[in-house]
Amino acid sequence: MIPAWLHRPCRPVSDAYRQQALARQSQLTKPAGALGRLEAVAVELAGLQGRARPRAARVPALLFAADHGIAAQGVSAYPAEVTVQMLRNFVGGGAAISVLARELGLPLRVHDVGTLATEAIDGVVADKCRRGTADFSAGEAMDAAALAHALDAGRRGLDAACAAPADLLLLGEMGIGNTASASALAALLGPLPLAEVVGAGSGLDPARQRHKQAVLERALALHGEAVARSSCPVPEALRRAGGLEIAALAGAMVAAAQQGTPVLVDGFIVSVAALAAVRLNPGVRDWLLFSHRSAERGHARVLDCLRAEPLLQLDLRLGEGSGAAVALPLLRLACALHNGMATFAEAAVAGRDGHAA
Amino acid sequence: MIPAWLHRPCRPVSDAYRQQALARQSQLTKPAGALGRLEAVAVELAGLQGRARPRAARVPALLFAADHGIAAQGVSAYPAEVTVQMLRNFVGGGAAISVLARELGLPLRVHDVGTLATEAIDGVVADKCRRGTADFSAGEAMDAAALAHALDAGRRGLDAACAAPADLLLLGEMGIGNTASASALAALLGPLPLAEVVGAGSGLDPARQRHKQAVLERALALHGEAVARSSCPVPEALRRAGGLEIAALAGAMVAAAQQGTPVLVDGFIVSVAALAAVRLNPGVRDWLLFSHRSAERGHARVLDCLRAEPLLQLDLRLGEGSGAAVALPLLRLACALHNGMATFAEAAVAGRDGHAA
Repeated sequence: MIPAWLHRPCRPVSDAYRQQALARQSQLTKPAGALGRLEAVAVELAGLQGRARPRAARVPALLFAADHGIAAQGVSAYPAEVTVQMLRNFVGGGAAISVLARELGLPLRVHDVGTLATEAIDGVVADKCRRGTADFSAGEAMDAAALAHALDAGRRGLDAACAAPADLLLLGEMGIGNTASASALAALLGPLPLAEVVGAGSGLDPARQRHKQAVLERALALHGEAVARSSCPVPEALRRAGGLEIAALAGAMVAAAQQGTPVLVDGFIVSVAALAAVRLNPGVRDWLLFSHRSAERGHARVLDCLRAEPLLQLDLRLGEGSGAAVALPLLRLACALHNGMATFAEAAVAGRDGHAA
Repeated sequence: MIPAWLHRPCRPVSDAYRQQALARQSQLTKPAGALGRLEAVAVELAGLQGRARPRAARVPALLFAADHGIAAQGVSAYPAEVTVQMLRNFVGGGAAISVLARELGLPLRVHDVGTLATEAIDGVVADKCRRGTADFSAGEAMDAAALAHALDAGRRGLDAACAAPADLLLLGEMGIGNTASASALAALLGPLPLAEVVGAGSGLDPARQRHKQAVLERALALHGEAVARSSCPVPEALRRAGGLEIAALAGAMVAAAQQGTPVLVDGFIVSVAALAAVRLNPGVRDWLLFSHRSAERGHARVLDCLRAEPLLQLDLRLGEGSGAAVALPLLRLACALHNGMATFAEAAVAGRDGHAA
């Protein structure tokens, strides 16, 4: 049902470099473990990158955008035209991710894999076979060809972003209505109770959230059984309830894990795409680093499904890859500490209880 | 009992700039509140700095170091000589804070306010009237003159670090045995149950932690009543159970709040100094930003006493100001987002429910 490349094995992680990094951490001039999660992330990156000295210098930010037929049901606080307006804002430099990319020196790529835009947008790569999904509360979001196109578009996006070798890939998204799609996918793929994964999205009040949940209950009544019975439940869920950008994100993650590029995962939407990617190809999980736990209801549950402990919890709920970008300096500092600190021997500092270290 | 300047009022925070910053946040191209804690920190900095555009560009890192007589009781996993060895490592560039200062472009100053060093160390400012405190499990840590010197040394350190105007001050410390002193001070000043604020420090095993707690119980039996009865309980606690670097940190925080420089607080030791500073002069609290909740047992309780919600929780427990340095990029990005994002009107993006924003 989906392109065959998605089932190819992911690159194995280097245990030798991981062990070497662990050994180095124990020799640096600090009590063992005193840098907590920063030690762990440096060791993890060393294993993923197969390098004694991990780094997070070149980090392309790749955003996928698409529109959602279900937005017509009033499941978002913003009208659908905001998706395309925000694409212009991304490339115009005024969006949060634009500011963050500038500050952090990230090459920013925006791929339109299915927005309603009818004309080209300067600076945005168009790679779509349809404009928006169909309303999945009334039918299937897309057909198999559109799903395959979106998954392939994910891989093409990755290839373009990593044409110059990347230390790490940062993924983000834009799409009015996409928390509705992500909630449905989380419920189907977790599986998780729908009530626990429907939230405020871009800022619905409680009455509008109840409406959103009722719309999604209808959608799950329509698709749940077909997904459960399918011999390929993950593609079937993506096709029926997915977003084109969510499928592209999942495709990009599988391709990144296959070629050996670690991915820094953003918030709720990207995490749901990660869940789909891991369920499609479990080897993907090793290649994912989790940046933050967002304020969107349901993100914590999806992270639990992925056994993920993000670095940050700052009540972010913007998307665009903004949370991943905010976490990137922690990874960079973790690498700098790992690579730049002196060992006890180099600095002539006594070890525990005065033993020569 | 302590220098009179410590009681002078702190600078008031600008509510006008705070309100202006809040208004700007509501116009930026994101759902209101979607940048969570990053919005709050930008607004807070705008009020503290009295600027429409807050910034965290020039951030001196100021470390105070001293030794502790109580180290002779075996309350640390490392021997006392490590304090001075680490001073050399700080200025030599091999310590965690040295690496972080380099990466983040922070001018790093190290002030020896009471280590055992008998000779000058290149690159370290000596400002001490004694070498180490006395063992406060057997007597008073210092006399009133030494406490006054250490508090003044804190102000002198601040003045030197902020000779070129600083956007923010980052404070750190070094001193083998100083979690023992900080635990005693937390118990006395909180007040908090000693058992809840004694931890592993630089890495004690459970048996050594029990020993540390027994030593501190003896110390509190010796000093608790005198502190409780004192008409100046905070200086009395600092004098009896304090560290010279902890007193200097408290002095630096009071002086920073008086001159209007926000302070980025590090981990357990600096937080205990902050508690002392706030109890001496409550206006200090407004000027403190909290970077992280450390893995050291007791830090969370001290933060509760200060009604502080730090930005990070990464299981750090190193000191040196390292946790504050790791949090600094978040403040910088918060400022960049606040200052650099487009408004809905500038970017021609529709607001909630399609209303022109």
